[in-house]
Amino acid sequence: MIRKTVFLVFYGWLTTTALLAQNGVLVFQSDFGTKDGAVSAMKGVAVGVSPNLRIFDLTHEIPPYNIWEAAYRLLQTAPYYPKGTVFVSVCDPGVGTERKSVVLLTQSGHYFVTPDNGTLTLIAEKLGIRQVREIDEAVNRLRNSSESYTFHGRDVYAYTGARLAAKMITFAQVGRELPAEVTKLPYQRPVLEKGVLKGNIPVLDVQYGNLWTSIPKQLFGQLGTKTGETVRVRIYHQDQLVFDNRLPLVNTFGESKAGENVAYFNSLLNFSVAVNMGNFAEKYNVNSGPDWRVEVEK
Amino acid sequence: MIRKTVFLVFYGWLTTTALLAQNGVLVFQSDFGTKDGAVSAMKGVAVGVSPNLRIFDLTHEIPPYNIWEAAYRLLQTAPYYPKGTVFVSVCDPGVGTERKSVVLLTQSGHYFVTPDNGTLTLIAEKLGIRQVREIDEAVNRLRNSSESYTFHGRDVYAYTGARLAAKMITFAQVGRELPAEVTKLPYQRPVLEKGVLKGNIPVLDVQYGNLWTSIPKQLFGQLGTKTGETVRVRIYHQDQLVFDNRLPLVNTFGESKAGENVAYFNSLLNFSVAVNMGNFAEKYNVNSGPDWRVEVEK
Amino acid sequence: MIRKTVFLVFYGWLTTTALLAQNGVLVFQSDFGTKDGAVSAMKGVAVGVSPNLRIFDLTHEIPPYNIWEAAYRLLQTAPYYPKGTVFVSVCDPGVGTERKSVVLLTQSGHYFVTPDNGTLTLIAEKLGIRQVREIDEAVNRLRNSSESYTFHGRDVYAYTGARLAAKMITFAQVGRELPAEVTKLPYQRPVLEKGVLKGNIPVLDVQYGNLWTSIPKQLFGQLGTKTGETVRVRIYHQDQLVFDNRLPLVNTFGESKAGENVAYFNSLLNFSVAVNMGNFAEKYNVNSGPDWRVEVEK
Repeated sequence: MIRKTVFLVFYGWLTTTALLAQNGVLVFQSDFGTKDGAVSAMKGVAVGVSPNLRIFDLTHEIPPYNIWEAAYRLLQTAPYYPKGTVFVSVCDPGVGTERKSVVLLTQSGHYFVTPDNGTLTLIAEKLGIRQVREIDEAVNRLRNSSESYTFHGRDVYAYTGARLAAKMITFAQVGRELPAEVTKLPYQRPVLEKGVLKGNIPVLDVQYGNLWTSIPKQLFGQLGTKTGETVRVRIYHQDQLVFDNRLPLVNTFGESKAGENVAYFNSLLNFSVAVNMGNFAEKYNVNSGPDWRVEVEK
Repeated sequence: MIRKTVFLVFYGWLTTTALLAQNGVLVFQSDFGTKDGAVSAMKGVAVGVSPNLRIFDLTHEIPPYNIWEAAYRLLQTAPYYPKGTVFVSVCDPGVGTERKSVVLLTQSGHYFVTPDNGTLTLIAEKLGIRQVREIDEAVNRLRNSSESYTFHGRDVYAYTGARLAAKMITFAQVGRELPAEVTKLPYQRPVLEKGVLKGNIPVLDVQYGNLWTSIPKQLFGQLGTKTGETVRVRIYHQDQLVFDNRLPLVNTFGESKAGENVAYFNSLLNFSVAVNMGNFAEKYNVNSGPDWRVEVEK
Repeated sequence: MIRKTVFLVFYGWLTTTALLAQNGVLVFQSDFGTKDGAVSAMKGVAVGVSPNLRIFDLTHEIPPYNIWEAAYRLLQTAPYYPKGTVFVSVCDPGVGTERKSVVLLTQSGHYFVTPDNGTLTLIAEKLGIRQVREIDEAVNRLRNSSESYTFHGRDVYAYTGARLAAKMITFAQVGRELPAEVTKLPYQRPVLEKGVLKGNIPVLDVQYGNLWTSIPKQLFGQLGTKTGETVRVRIYHQDQLVFDNRLPLVNTFGESKAGENVAYFNSLLNFSVAVNMGNFAEKYNVNSGPDWRVEVEK
């Protein structure tokens, strides 16, 4: 019994200090935009903590207050960064209210510094929760910043993320451990019911106007449709039918002509719909979010 | 007397070479946007000077030719970078004319490479002027670039800023010392007159549509209004009254309901006005700049 | 004969391993925009390859599928980066089709990782072709990404560019050598015919609305027009005359008044047209691309 405890303590120490060690990479996401100095002020704080950090941007074009999209962008990118990377995400409609400021360490060894307002919904499911800690703002806050109530991104999140990434504090020094759970946004999980795949449209591929659904390739496989065959796709806004048509399933856009509608699997291997060389969302007036859902059948 | 001179020379050497030494961090600001290659060409020049520089962006979305906003963005961010950081700001409506190209070293130990066209108005007041030097373009100019009259940002400012940041030139090697002053844009300084606070609206918090005024928290304190109480806010465009209403003063948006107007102190601790979860500027058709001013009273 | 061969082999080894060695600088360009996570996922892959890379952006605001503009932006910026820099350009309307994925090494020692779809048209002419290799996706592809057909930018180009820049593979390990040529987009080369300079409008200086033509300063010199004199400028969309007026040739905008039309040489030393402190493209409803051309005479 003692031996086992010693082993577990040793194992815990090993995983925390070696396998899960921070790697000096710091990635920022926000809904600040890049027209003003807010993002740059956060980076200035980080550089002041340590000039040796490798600092990157996820995006700062999250639509203001859109926590769902912040959650989705973390899902889309974080798994492609090496373990030990620290992400700072600031989409914080409730800044200054009682939502907790936390750091999530995932099973995969990635760190996420953020208000716990739903931003962690998808990444916690994808990468697994190892531990959640609440940021102790009494110690983890930029010096002389206590008069500013409104810019936690700079004064708390960037500062704490930078100190964690630079190993100036350990994960434990972030603050007290919380139960291993995060605040979750409700969303429709994809299902196959009586031959009809149902899912939602979490996000658009905004640059091209493609429509990404939440239906994974693996679940789609149960329909039995093969590349080259067509599927029937219906899109609903709330309860109104907005689009109803058959589309060919392609591996690549090169298999269709310019202007043709196609179904395909996107870079996250989710079922998606597009106009080859065009903009599906504009053409059919479709959008994304909790109100938009999709049904697919043979 | 000799001793004093020796001491002063030694002190000068010490402060210049040690306390005020450049730290290898280079921050770019411009009105170039990021749709073309202008910003990247500047960075290419900097990387060519030294691959070891830490290069960051302030913003490149300064509205074209808007020197005032360039000045404001430096004020908003530069103090958050460590001393020794070199800023290159290129908003240059008069490129190729007689405005001087300068480098300002502030009392705080930050360097600013820019046309002296008003861009330094606010940061010189905030951080203090230690020394101003004129860039000697005979030596501080990218090789083989003398045929291009129009891209000083790349050929002179980026090149000189990078060489200074990388310690390939000393501050003295920038060029001859100028009088310790910078070209200033005129602006209404905030005042309290007969119980009415008067200031201007230097800039919007563009991403959210909040209105930031030039009235600092400290001056506001003389009104005697406390959190939870209301103040009367009037906004004028030139001499026309555009908004006149009472707003509650809050510490954080969380103290109000979505859609409510509130007054608060922004991340620079200036008096500001917003719609919680909304866009004040759009709702009331308010904008920023020299023509916009504000009056606040109990 | 043997001696010569030995010498050539040795010379080849020397140039490849020393003079043309990669320098650890990696520059990304794409038409992805920065609103979602696509660009950041590419950088995550690169950081995972090596945390020591110096990663920069050219632009990600190439209009979707606009290969011509991608080609032009490389021309505008790549020569300003030091030799050994690796560029990854992803504007790929034909993703998943038979266009080849290649790496171009130029005579100047710059590397370009891209689909060979015309993106290399201008940079190959400007910097010269030393060698072209086809990316062997059997080995140069992110692990476990073979199910995703649509995101070659992340899985093939970013991964290969990062490994090349970090010297984890040699140029030869990219894949088999191809003939020393690239796919070229057709475009009107500038000519002087019977006293009339003819060229096209490859691109706008988007931020300011200036019009950049393909007519170089050197060719313009044959007209014999000097600074301060005027030239007649005609702009055609397809065969329709859109603008016809005389403009003064200036060295810098400072030589004209605000609101005046001027002709000048841009930062690439090509003949250009602008409204001083205004937006020429908006004022005269002019745009850029293969359909737009210009004629200039005394």
